Amino acid sequence: MVNGQWQMDNESMNRIVHVNVPQHPYDVVIDVGLLGRAGEVLRTVHGRGGRAVVITDSNVGPLYAEALAASLAKADYACSILTFPAGEASKTLATYGSLMEQLLASTPPIDRRTVIVALGGGVTGDLAGFVAATALRGLSFINIPTTLLADVDSSVGGKTGVDSAAGKNLIGAFHQPRAVLIDPAMLATLPVEQVRNGLAECVKHAVIRDAELLEMISRQAEAILAKDAAVLAELIARNVAIKAGVVAADEREASIRADLNFGHTVGHALEAAGGFGALGHGQAVALGMIAANTIAVGRRLLSRADSETVESVLRKLGLPVRLADLPHLPAQAAEPARLLDLMTRDKKARAGRARFVLATHLGRAAIYDDVTEQEIRAALAAIGAR
Amino acid sequence: MVNGQWQMDNESMNRIVHVNVPQHPYDVVIDVGLLGRAGEVLRTVHGRGGRAVVITDSNVGPLYAEALAASLAKADYACSILTFPAGEASKTLATYGSLMEQLLASTPPIDRRTVIVALGGGVTGDLAGFVAATALRGLSFINIPTTLLADVDSSVGGKTGVDSAAGKNLIGAFHQPRAVLIDPAMLATLPVEQVRNGLAECVKHAVIRDAELLEMISRQAEAILAKDAAVLAELIARNVAIKAGVVAADEREASIRADLNFGHTVGHALEAAGGFGALGHGQAVALGMIAANTIAVGRRLLSRADSETVESVLRKLGLPVRLADLPHLPAQAAEPARLLDLMTRDKKARAGRARFVLATHLGRAAIYDDVTEQEIRAALAAIGAR
Repeated sequence: MVNGQWQMDNESMNRIVHVNVPQHPYDVVIDVGLLGRAGEVLRTVHGRGGRAVVITDSNVGPLYAEALAASLAKADYACSILTFPAGEASKTLATYGSLMEQLLASTPPIDRRTVIVALGGGVTGDLAGFVAATALRGLSFINIPTTLLADVDSSVGGKTGVDSAAGKNLIGAFHQPRAVLIDPAMLATLPVEQVRNGLAECVKHAVIRDAELLEMISRQAEAILAKDAAVLAELIARNVAIKAGVVAADEREASIRADLNFGHTVGHALEAAGGFGALGHGQAVALGMIAANTIAVGRRLLSRADSETVESVLRKLGLPVRLADLPHLPAQAAEPARLLDLMTRDKKARAGRARFVLATHLGRAAIYDDVTEQEIRAALAAIGAR
Repeated sequence: MVNGQWQMDNESMNRIVHVNVPQHPYDVVIDVGLLGRAGEVLRTVHGRGGRAVVITDSNVGPLYAEALAASLAKADYACSILTFPAGEASKTLATYGSLMEQLLASTPPIDRRTVIVALGGGVTGDLAGFVAATALRGLSFINIPTTLLADVDSSVGGKTGVDSAAGKNLIGAFHQPRAVLIDPAMLATLPVEQVRNGLAECVKHAVIRDAELLEMISRQAEAILAKDAAVLAELIARNVAIKAGVVAADEREASIRADLNFGHTVGHALEAAGGFGALGHGQAVALGMIAANTIAVGRRLLSRADSETVESVLRKLGLPVRLADLPHLPAQAAEPARLLDLMTRDKKARAGRARFVLATHLGRAAIYDDVTEQEIRAALAAIGAR
């Protein structure tokens, strides 16, 4: 598939991205109003009727679970709903265990034909996907993401799981969904800071794979931030197609999937140094991209003009490009020595060396293991770390 | 592979059974004294050095963990040992979570090259396998079973997981080991009742796949019960080869893998009716095989003489063939109405009908969904349920 391309289903007018992972290929379906047709879509991928168990959180459930349940019931699914407290703090083995025992104790009992439906952001998809991966050694899983970040990032790729006391996402399984259903109309209720978390990943996709997407984001920034559903549908479809292309080529993250870590080497360090929650994931990634581009410009991989284009798009979207753009950030999140230490201890580091994805051109990227401490310090200085 | 066949590796003199599951084929290596060469074998399948984490229980650990650790250290593995309380009561999400957090918190930190080594019976293999399946979304797993039941049954097939409050084995994942190492010398410390648990499964394999194996068991019953290591090595290799053949043909239990449920329809009901622990798994399966053969003889699928051969082999092995052989069995474990009810509620039942695997000949079996209540009652009467 050409990066950033999706197909229109002529009958339903849905945008469809085919995720061609080995053994378990599936479709991501994107359309305004799709939530009300979820039962219909489920019937085409899973067959008529049976049991569906919706897993959602205490924020999203009250907004959308009823509409989903009605659509599933119309398609002859016996539907029940399990709700957990919203927030990253729920992404634990304890919540997983509680959801699992509720699922297994439900009446009538679930069986191997039961389908698990996630309705929520990344935490919900990761938790519900892990429950689906491990209940009766594997149930069918449908993901209905409700945040832009989940739409364009975590809902595609098959990663499921929970956090450990020792670190984020250390426990889990690869379990591909049978389908992902994205209804951009649901973003209407999403706080704009959370929209920005997704937009940082969209810019990332554009920089590593699709320069034309960067132009589209720049051109449509206002409509995107105003949550114009049609524009969002186009944006999401293009980003899902990029992510799907990368994932299909490298399901288990052996090599090119690592390109998706663009902006994340410094980004993760900023999040960890500030204490998770001190800055948004999108804010951290935006700053991380600026830092990575500083290194790329220093190596003459990327032109200064291209780097400035990325910076201006991030500014238009209301994302930070300097630490000073985040006046409430705790001082320790900006200490170069601390950030350097965190980068070399990251699970994706090799033999104590930070790994950087660098843009070699707008729309292209490669992995570098040889970035020096001096280069990293210069990049941190460029975003204002001192 | 021909059922019941294994190969001799000429250099090492190990018996080797190749388990040809798609994507993740692996070898089961069987040899007297193999525990002392575990590091060597691990190096050939996993590469030189790295980290190995042994998961064992409070019974087996004190007997064999030190020898295993020494062998791993000799092969340049940095080895640590995690121990949990022995017994089926440990097969829970709580124990899984505790082992997982200990694993993830260990120093130096584990990485994707870390290998998990199970040392113990079926509970240990299932727990450690599930930890391996879900730590960092999947680590390499080596299984070193230490009971005859685990040797010939649970160690081959890739099923991992834990029990739920709602039932046994409801939580878990398919995760194939990289290798299974069986040292029959370790059975020297296994109580004979537990040897019998494994022998019931050996008889099962013989009845559904290999009449000649039934003769071998009959001929060698005394040496087997005396735990003659050479005879056990041959017995284990033949049984692993049968199980491997079935599993390779049907990894996810869609059809023929169900043949392995021979004796288990009535067996599971007996275990559930008595309360788990009231009778051994092997005892339950032995009685279940007699019940199934009664149905098969009634349908003229199996000759009375063949049925009597099976019964006489079970007797030779000290396994029960009538409920009266178990004088301490609680009365409720023998109530036909209760047993019937449990059989139709089993997760392998379909639409309220018990499924029976019936021998159609010694060495052949098929699945029957049309067994009537009358036939089941007659079979229960034959083992003395009233």
